[in-house]
Amino acid sequence: MRKFNFCAGPAALPEPVLLQAQQELLDWGGRGCSVMEVSHRSPEFTEVAERAEQDFRDLLSIPAHYKVLFVQGGATGQFSAIPWNLFGGGVKRADYIHTGQWAGKAIKEASRYGEVNVVASSEDRNFSYAPAADAWQESDRSAYFHYTPNETIGGVEFNYVPEVKAPLVADMSSNILSKAIPIEKFGMIYAGAQKNIGPSGIAVVIVREDLLDRAMSDIPRSLNWKIAAEAGSMDNTPPTFAWYLSGLVFQWLKAQGGVEAMYEQSLKKSGLLYEFLDRSDFFSSPVDPASRSRMNVPFVLADEQLDARFLNEAEETGLLNLKGHRSVGGMRASLYNAVPLEAVEALVAFMADFEKRVA
Amino acid sequence: MRKFNFCAGPAALPEPVLLQAQQELLDWGGRGCSVMEVSHRSPEFTEVAERAEQDFRDLLSIPAHYKVLFVQGGATGQFSAIPWNLFGGGVKRADYIHTGQWAGKAIKEASRYGEVNVVASSEDRNFSYAPAADAWQESDRSAYFHYTPNETIGGVEFNYVPEVKAPLVADMSSNILSKAIPIEKFGMIYAGAQKNIGPSGIAVVIVREDLLDRAMSDIPRSLNWKIAAEAGSMDNTPPTFAWYLSGLVFQWLKAQGGVEAMYEQSLKKSGLLYEFLDRSDFFSSPVDPASRSRMNVPFVLADEQLDARFLNEAEETGLLNLKGHRSVGGMRASLYNAVPLEAVEALVAFMADFEKRVA
Repeated sequence: MRKFNFCAGPAALPEPVLLQAQQELLDWGGRGCSVMEVSHRSPEFTEVAERAEQDFRDLLSIPAHYKVLFVQGGATGQFSAIPWNLFGGGVKRADYIHTGQWAGKAIKEASRYGEVNVVASSEDRNFSYAPAADAWQESDRSAYFHYTPNETIGGVEFNYVPEVKAPLVADMSSNILSKAIPIEKFGMIYAGAQKNIGPSGIAVVIVREDLLDRAMSDIPRSLNWKIAAEAGSMDNTPPTFAWYLSGLVFQWLKAQGGVEAMYEQSLKKSGLLYEFLDRSDFFSSPVDPASRSRMNVPFVLADEQLDARFLNEAEETGLLNLKGHRSVGGMRASLYNAVPLEAVEALVAFMADFEKRVA
Repeated sequence: MRKFNFCAGPAALPEPVLLQAQQELLDWGGRGCSVMEVSHRSPEFTEVAERAEQDFRDLLSIPAHYKVLFVQGGATGQFSAIPWNLFGGGVKRADYIHTGQWAGKAIKEASRYGEVNVVASSEDRNFSYAPAADAWQESDRSAYFHYTPNETIGGVEFNYVPEVKAPLVADMSSNILSKAIPIEKFGMIYAGAQKNIGPSGIAVVIVREDLLDRAMSDIPRSLNWKIAAEAGSMDNTPPTFAWYLSGLVFQWLKAQGGVEAMYEQSLKKSGLLYEFLDRSDFFSSPVDPASRSRMNVPFVLADEQLDARFLNEAEETGLLNLKGHRSVGGMRASLYNAVPLEAVEALVAFMADFEKRVA
């Protein structure tokens, strides 16, 4: 029996997607083999790959002058790929907003290859909010401007898109496909799949074509967006099963009503949980109300001695993976697209009951 | 119904492995979720990861002073990773044997970062043999010595391990786990999974510990073996499903009798096909008999006008993916561990019949 899974990533996948993958795992469309067992260059797989890209483009209304790449790895791989691909155009400086652990890792890696200007940071209040745009000091010349629209660990989400001079680069690993994106405001967007797209081991990159000529000369081949773009993301053997499964998720998303429906759903799900947290005397959210994530909801118990009991009882109730990230502790419920409203209703009911019993 | 699949990669997987994966795809061991839907750092997945590593170590008798890494990507990723990890020790020169397309790609990437000395090449006879060791001119000082024990496209396999001064580095993507390896003769071994290990998107690296301190200073984090080794291959989110499936393949291999049994089996399977090719007046092998691969068997028809008909009829007979690589044409039967003897028997029977009908 499937349980409600609040894992931050690798995260829950839509049940209909898993069912289809299960059904055709040994014999894919009557071909007598698995989708994992055919060449990535075969007509059968090419169809899967192209359809996945087209569905993804449809879902996010991606204009033709943006390339979509399916690359190996996840966000961490792109932390290096970004400076390698964009510092070769004459400017080895970039602006970054520091909003927590993921932004921090991106900054650390970029600093190895050029100058990083941290234009804003929320470190002063333990990364519990998204900095406002008014106090920024953008660089005069910057290869790009990087931010993290949703911090998976801190549960902080930007409720606006920064308006900046340099090409805007965003790590959307944990909130992509959960709302419409004004793509033309961005130079490059990337997302590890394992939260809102598919299984781990694949990442999606959206990059404006004119940025493909700015790579540093000694960039490793496997990080090079231009090579990937020219080869249809098949310069090397791609993770075919992950690509296929991502494609099934895109089809499922379309059937659900696309990103607009996901956005409504995310407001409903996260709203239900935040309202409960704000009403509760026992549970609380550490995140600034204006920056609360629709995807990742960290919360704490008034008595952390009860953390272990809470987690045990939750698991017994069929509510999985509510433990907060090892770096911050507490709890975290991740409410990605594949997590149904019923899961949040069950969670809130359990929390209310728990509070009544221990308070 | 499953058919016989001779794909060069992503290649056939053992049916019992796919069956187990299918069975537990939605509900893994009664946990109420898929193995794809749990954190890579969870105790459940840690157990999967550690068992896979231990089984792999057991299968190849890997000594304790070698690290085993599960990394993103495949051989192409490692073509860059090798010079980045080994050119930082003071010597930016490496020896390479050129035996065909994969060796060629490795050489091309390494040449971007240092001096490549091609000690031997089989280009003179269209990469149809593995060069003998007697004519080599090793460099006096070399960061490493690289070769490709099995060329997937050319179907050429070394029947010996080079004895060299520098740390020996080998791309074993297409013949790993098909025979015992004298690990201590090697500095580093790598293999993309999608032939003899698991699905595409993951690669296994075996590296001698003392080589982990030779990375160039600006190596991208995701290519750094030392960082991967120190983090148990979890500096970033690994491709968990591919890792899990690879682990199931290792368990299956152990149950089959390990690499010794696979070696016997590979001799039987490839022997059957080569004997047929050598007897036939219509089909032939373009590869030097002393260097014929046990894993990839290219062959040609006396009349290439019949290629398309051969492929069509083969497919109708349930023999899949026999088309040769687009760069060389002709046919190729890949006989990895998961391809059963019955598949080769069926192939040979079909070829004999085809020959009788068209000759």
